[in-house]
Amino acid sequence: MEPDSESIAVPNGSIEEDRRSPPPPPMPTNPMVTPLLADLYQFTMAYAYWKAGKHLDRAVFDLYFRKNPFGGEYTIFGGLEECIRFVANFKLKEEEISFLRSAMPTCEDGFFDYLRSIDCSDVEVYAIPEGSVVFPKIPLMRIEGPVAVVQLLETPFLCLVNYASLVTTNAARHRLVAGKSKTLLEFGLRRAQGPDGGISASRYCYMGGFDATSNVEAGRLFGIPLRGTHSHAFVSSYMSLDEIIDKALLSHDGSSTCEDFVTLVQNWLNKIQRAKSLHGVFGETNQSELAAFTSYALAFPKNFLALVDTYDVIRSGVPNFCAVALSLNDLGYKAIGIRLDSGDLAYLSTEARKFFQSIEEEFDVFDFGKMNITASNDLNEETIDALNKQGHEVDAFGIGTYLVTCYAQAALGCVFKLVEINNQPRIKLSEDVTKVSIPCKKRCYRLYGKEGYPLVDIMTGENEPAPKIGERILCRHPFTESKRAYVVPQHIEELLKCYWPGNSHKTREELPPIGKIRKRCMQHLDQMRPDHMRRLNPTPYKVSVSAKLYDFIHFLWLSEAPVGELQ
Amino acid sequence: MEPDSESIAVPNGSIEEDRRSPPPPPMPTNPMVTPLLADLYQFTMAYAYWKAGKHLDRAVFDLYFRKNPFGGEYTIFGGLEECIRFVANFKLKEEEISFLRSAMPTCEDGFFDYLRSIDCSDVEVYAIPEGSVVFPKIPLMRIEGPVAVVQLLETPFLCLVNYASLVTTNAARHRLVAGKSKTLLEFGLRRAQGPDGGISASRYCYMGGFDATSNVEAGRLFGIPLRGTHSHAFVSSYMSLDEIIDKALLSHDGSSTCEDFVTLVQNWLNKIQRAKSLHGVFGETNQSELAAFTSYALAFPKNFLALVDTYDVIRSGVPNFCAVALSLNDLGYKAIGIRLDSGDLAYLSTEARKFFQSIEEEFDVFDFGKMNITASNDLNEETIDALNKQGHEVDAFGIGTYLVTCYAQAALGCVFKLVEINNQPRIKLSEDVTKVSIPCKKRCYRLYGKEGYPLVDIMTGENEPAPKIGERILCRHPFTESKRAYVVPQHIEELLKCYWPGNSHKTREELPPIGKIRKRCMQHLDQMRPDHMRRLNPTPYKVSVSAKLYDFIHFLWLSEAPVGELQ
Repeated sequence: MEPDSESIAVPNGSIEEDRRSPPPPPMPTNPMVTPLLADLYQFTMAYAYWKAGKHLDRAVFDLYFRKNPFGGEYTIFGGLEECIRFVANFKLKEEEISFLRSAMPTCEDGFFDYLRSIDCSDVEVYAIPEGSVVFPKIPLMRIEGPVAVVQLLETPFLCLVNYASLVTTNAARHRLVAGKSKTLLEFGLRRAQGPDGGISASRYCYMGGFDATSNVEAGRLFGIPLRGTHSHAFVSSYMSLDEIIDKALLSHDGSSTCEDFVTLVQNWLNKIQRAKSLHGVFGETNQSELAAFTSYALAFPKNFLALVDTYDVIRSGVPNFCAVALSLNDLGYKAIGIRLDSGDLAYLSTEARKFFQSIEEEFDVFDFGKMNITASNDLNEETIDALNKQGHEVDAFGIGTYLVTCYAQAALGCVFKLVEINNQPRIKLSEDVTKVSIPCKKRCYRLYGKEGYPLVDIMTGENEPAPKIGERILCRHPFTESKRAYVVPQHIEELLKCYWPGNSHKTREELPPIGKIRKRCMQHLDQMRPDHMRRLNPTPYKVSVSAKLYDFIHFLWLSEAPVGELQ
Repeated sequence: MEPDSESIAVPNGSIEEDRRSPPPPPMPTNPMVTPLLADLYQFTMAYAYWKAGKHLDRAVFDLYFRKNPFGGEYTIFGGLEECIRFVANFKLKEEEISFLRSAMPTCEDGFFDYLRSIDCSDVEVYAIPEGSVVFPKIPLMRIEGPVAVVQLLETPFLCLVNYASLVTTNAARHRLVAGKSKTLLEFGLRRAQGPDGGISASRYCYMGGFDATSNVEAGRLFGIPLRGTHSHAFVSSYMSLDEIIDKALLSHDGSSTCEDFVTLVQNWLNKIQRAKSLHGVFGETNQSELAAFTSYALAFPKNFLALVDTYDVIRSGVPNFCAVALSLNDLGYKAIGIRLDSGDLAYLSTEARKFFQSIEEEFDVFDFGKMNITASNDLNEETIDALNKQGHEVDAFGIGTYLVTCYAQAALGCVFKLVEINNQPRIKLSEDVTKVSIPCKKRCYRLYGKEGYPLVDIMTGENEPAPKIGERILCRHPFTESKRAYVVPQHIEELLKCYWPGNSHKTREELPPIGKIRKRCMQHLDQMRPDHMRRLNPTPYKVSVSAKLYDFIHFLWLSEAPVGELQ
């Protein structure tokens, strides 16, 4: 399957439709994501705001990250749809309120009445479209509304965006290193950080460019294509061919029945053993394994893919597989291939390919040499890169642990910062300059150059005139005075779009189905200048502010920071 | 709070009771954990077993891991209760079956009738008690039953145990490095790997020795004590003291009302500024911050804890905090303390402590110098260890990202291997000797020495006589011939207990409430010989097999491995 394909192998009705349906009506959300999926301080702050009569102050928060993950210079934004679904359904239940009452026993009753009354009808959410390539400091989302309510969204939004964006980025990085021609399978459920970590991983790895998952529940929920065959346990659960009772197999065209498929397999194994071109490669193969393969082929003659490393890949697994595949071939079926799950994947895949090619020549079986080889042993970006450099014959990679847990960097540091309240810009200072927040309600643009690549992202104040095509604009680094450049954009994209208009009457952007988001992601990645995307020493993409915003940031910074006294 | 305390701040009724209730009746489970939370290959294998008439073969699987995480020599077992709840509720729903039918279109109808019929009534689950210190290769769980059904449990069990054990171990390691006297707070929800990653993290960090969480939903579900105050956004949401309208505060004993708490705070700030012992430490403090602290104290006079690093810890945050805390003190309230979230925590905590002590002396306020200092900036085992070495004045650590994502090692590699089928022992070979499985249905014991420490874990065949106190037993490394030792145990513990008897009529072990599991965990950790628990270069704990099992493993290995041919 092409990485940018939209086709979905597994039929999926209601969810896709639901995503295309119009605005507000409550959409199904992850059952774990409730208003209590928050830090306690959101509720204590809400109480303090309420107590001070400040809870309706109109606040603007930015959600952004400070550094790209995995040593790279890009990130893919994921998690938006889940945030919007959360907002659409935001309403505290009676039992949640009574739990909060018990957890905050000193708070006045009126506060719990207030909690009972709130929803997100006067909240506005602006965001960059999900699946976009994004960069540090630029808000992925801007959330406006009554300060107490917006503050309650902080942790759920961060929780929904942080991991989603991290694992989508990880998947995209694996796609880039593997290349478009390889099939990428996500096999991570068993090693994921909790059940929902597994489900989220499958969803966002597909979004980031994977072709399929082993996770059945993710297939059901999101219509992601499913893949899977058998494990080592299946192989070792067989002792011998005698265990196979029903040996009959109907031919692919239904015209005839082979009454003893087991004998057919044994005969093929003998022929392979005697074949000159394969002479001496193997002796006796493991009979448990042969029985398991034969049995699996009888169950799935159209989808025969065998795990060949339970005992010994070259001396047992591959010849046993070939005997079964050639028997299937006699009946008009085409075996799919093998999976390698241990050992030197470069060497074993190359040896297996040679074996398949010898079989093709020796027995004149069309395309047998092109048999699919899947590899799946603790793979990650580095090992795939190393395999590519060494040379291998793997067609599909099954990737689990390192992909879904984002082992190379297990967290993305998205933050949620107040940038304006009651039209007053606010800044958060820090001794670490990279942690200073960029104040003001902002607009954000991506400026493209002559060659069609994005050149720079720029933030301006809400009311500054937008940059214009063909007009020179000064782009400044937000904190470093000397870093600045003039840009003449050939194309301009406003980044933040309205996904939840609240009662502002703005048009609400559609939430596209996952296939479309995946396509956007692949297109965005293709569009980037290659040096930003390199695995080693990539060029940083520039993120800037307008001259006016630069001046304002530094004015506010000085006015808020206390002046030291040297003694 | 003592790390081994069982007290739970937040009342919690039904769940605790439910856990103590007797055997089978369905218990509530995580809504994400359904029978479809599995890899597709479990269902394709189930079909192949069913098609071959082999689905009822009685199989025994071991769930174990191969290597302790985080460079340590111990692991804490977590996730058992969730597995047992899953087993108790295991039943495919009609809509799940129809999804499977669409995903496996070539399978015969009878198979889906079979799926409709299965549950775990003839499955038996044996396990080491949750919260125990455990070691590689020893089965954490042994699962027996019809091969097709037990195979369907593989991925859900691994998903439930892998992360739970990993994060419990991570929490225990943080507890060991912080020491018993410190309060440990889990603040990781926003950086967790998905919503359920966050909820699981809170649950298992508590089990591993944390005192409280910020995660409200985890507090509600598991009765974990909750903690939280306010964020930087709360501080910067205020502009000045003029915003505070209702300035009255009732004294702690209810005997009088301070009509203008704001003026009281301003007066105290002036006094502090003029105090000789503090002279010149700070000039003008930030007024937004002072307003925010004052407002928060008006809302929570009994629980005043302030985040002091929004502008400048020593020049603004700490003096502002002290002004409010001294005002509260005038009204009979005792402030809790401060939280530091950036900068050099050793230096800042020490400076803050000196400031508090000066206030205590200057104004003669009892215990003001002992004010609680919480630190919470990207902490992990290493940074806490470094702080300890340098010297600091932190009383409580709030730990998020590194704890919950297990950043230092984001996955534990538990596996689920077939060890016996129809009473025939099975082995899984591998070129990597550490990946060879230990065959046979086994019994496992922990042998204790004279000093009360565990000495060695030993596995024997199911029918071998149990080791006896005071009797010498030979313990052999499972794979290395030369590694063996005689042990004379002073105390013996059988490790695997029956948690799900199926229809075997065995007694079912109780699932204790989380507080008891936490206590067991703390006791187990205390019981270990200290050199196994060291952070650097710990001594490996020995895991062994009986002489008889050793011989059998190697007999089976040779009989299954193909013999090579050198040419």
